[in-house]
Amino acid sequence: MTIKITGTGSYIPNNVEKNEDFYQHEFLNSDGSTINAPNEVIVEKFKAITGIDERRYAEKKLNTSDIAFFAAEKAIENAKINREDIDYIIVAHNYGDVKHNTEQSDTVPSIASRVKHLLKIQNPKCVGYDVLFGCPGWIEGVIQANAFIKSGIAKTCLVIGAETLSRVIDPHDRDSMIYSDGAGAVIVESSNEEGGIIAHETATFALDEAHFIFFGETNHPDINDNRRYIKMYGRKIYEFAISNVPKAMKSCLDKSGVDIKDLKKILIHQANEKMDEAIVKRFYKLYNMQMPENIMPMTIGKLGNSSVATVPTLYDMILRGDLDNQQINKGDIIMFASVGAGMNINAIVYKV
Amino acid sequence: MTIKITGTGSYIPNNVEKNEDFYQHEFLNSDGSTINAPNEVIVEKFKAITGIDERRYAEKKLNTSDIAFFAAEKAIENAKINREDIDYIIVAHNYGDVKHNTEQSDTVPSIASRVKHLLKIQNPKCVGYDVLFGCPGWIEGVIQANAFIKSGIAKTCLVIGAETLSRVIDPHDRDSMIYSDGAGAVIVESSNEEGGIIAHETATFALDEAHFIFFGETNHPDINDNRRYIKMYGRKIYEFAISNVPKAMKSCLDKSGVDIKDLKKILIHQANEKMDEAIVKRFYKLYNMQMPENIMPMTIGKLGNSSVATVPTLYDMILRGDLDNQQINKGDIIMFASVGAGMNINAIVYKV
Repeated sequence: MTIKITGTGSYIPNNVEKNEDFYQHEFLNSDGSTINAPNEVIVEKFKAITGIDERRYAEKKLNTSDIAFFAAEKAIENAKINREDIDYIIVAHNYGDVKHNTEQSDTVPSIASRVKHLLKIQNPKCVGYDVLFGCPGWIEGVIQANAFIKSGIAKTCLVIGAETLSRVIDPHDRDSMIYSDGAGAVIVESSNEEGGIIAHETATFALDEAHFIFFGETNHPDINDNRRYIKMYGRKIYEFAISNVPKAMKSCLDKSGVDIKDLKKILIHQANEKMDEAIVKRFYKLYNMQMPENIMPMTIGKLGNSSVATVPTLYDMILRGDLDNQQINKGDIIMFASVGAGMNINAIVYKV
Repeated sequence: MTIKITGTGSYIPNNVEKNEDFYQHEFLNSDGSTINAPNEVIVEKFKAITGIDERRYAEKKLNTSDIAFFAAEKAIENAKINREDIDYIIVAHNYGDVKHNTEQSDTVPSIASRVKHLLKIQNPKCVGYDVLFGCPGWIEGVIQANAFIKSGIAKTCLVIGAETLSRVIDPHDRDSMIYSDGAGAVIVESSNEEGGIIAHETATFALDEAHFIFFGETNHPDINDNRRYIKMYGRKIYEFAISNVPKAMKSCLDKSGVDIKDLKKILIHQANEKMDEAIVKRFYKLYNMQMPENIMPMTIGKLGNSSVATVPTLYDMILRGDLDNQQINKGDIIMFASVGAGMNINAIVYKV
């Protein structure tokens, strides 16, 4: 028995928020002090580091559970399965449903229950739960699905990553330009075909790193409303990621027994273009190799960082031929990898 | 190999909120209309149905992650394991950390990462994640730990249920008297001893039932702040639970092969005394039996409904001899069962 992804789907919100749309923002440092540069320069610098030109925001009337449902519908259709045969619906997110112009996260019922409701699945044996694991949540959901199938308690799992980060960003923080909304979903099934999940690796670094990404107040010193937003220590995360993610990827690849030369693509969490490049370069350096051209498909320029949604969305787009010069074919060996709040790191070596 | 609970711990907050403490509340119906009864009568009626005399609220300075950590420390100590050997930290909760006098749920980083940080665990291979599954979240966490151990990716898991419902209650809603704070934790390990988890069962009813427990506005019509609170359709939940929970419990027991006469205790989620009694009576009726005396230990009178925390806290209290006339001994076969937001139901048949 192998464990394979038999269907994919994604939902990319229609609202495009361009870098120019931030020109009117009042950006401040985290201590509330003024940044000595005009916004055009701030945005240009931001673009140079992250690679982000524009990002997507969900329509006001839609919440995380809605876009999760849209992606799920497509994955079910793509896998050509009967939705009543799904054993688990696993939804990775971070903030639950945050209605537009409100600040509370709504996580009861779970997003998985909401998705199951919207999918109109009757079968009570289809169990829905949410997993909170930072940006690597979707990959972790696939690893959990893998364990359920291996242990015999499931055959078919729907694993979704969905997030609306646009609802939790501080407009006075430059980092707000990173975040995006989106949803990606896959069907994971036990299969008689060869390939599938060959190896996986997960690590949680919490001793010093737990609060590198956190919930904090606005950078604007005159606003005293206690409202909190997604915040991060970018420099610390960068240092952490480039030192620890390549090692975790190597550990995963070595476990899989796959020769690095046989690795066709690395689908890495779209967090920051420069950081992603540094990670993958260092990964190859651990094998005394140069990073091969075109190994790391990127969507961050147009889609920003949609947290748990980026990796499944990227995979879905490539399979559908929506990404220039990027293809994944049957039999290809690829790696999924992610890093994010926790701080969590994970990777999967997968044969398509 | 068997999979056993090798240590337990719980944290019961010190602040006691008695029924009399609600005498000054202005209770209203969900449509904002006045309730035609003095508060003493409202509270007396509430007590007659739910069995709740008092409940516990966490100290203002403590959050869900803090009390989760307290319970975890005790479970680790009780299991006599090295904390660095823990493979997974699974934390079930519903609302994350909600600081006293604030309304936002803080779930980034995950509560599991916060607990791992507080436990000062170094080992990055110890993976921490949160599961959102309504009140049955802790039992579901144990079922997930069981799958990880069975599938070979873990040997030792720390599974915690922690919640501070006092932070999300509407003071104008009579149901606010139900909710409580608390934390319970267990160590689940692969073992060479006999017994352990014999069977488990989970169901998610989301077609009509997904929003029986939800996030809604205050009952007070003059308050227009958009803030939302835990809300439920009590009557619908009651009908749902007494019709579906006994069936799930039976399905689990039948799967286990255990004779119902050998079942020593049923540790059921402490949601409402009358409802719990009706569920367990119906469960026995499915076997044409009367509910045996003393089969269902209750803590709801003193502890209220602390969601994910109630079942592990109850188990820990009985093992420690803290519950009058209730004992669980080595070799006893017991059942854990729960029902809650989702709507989710689960059960485990377990040999101590």
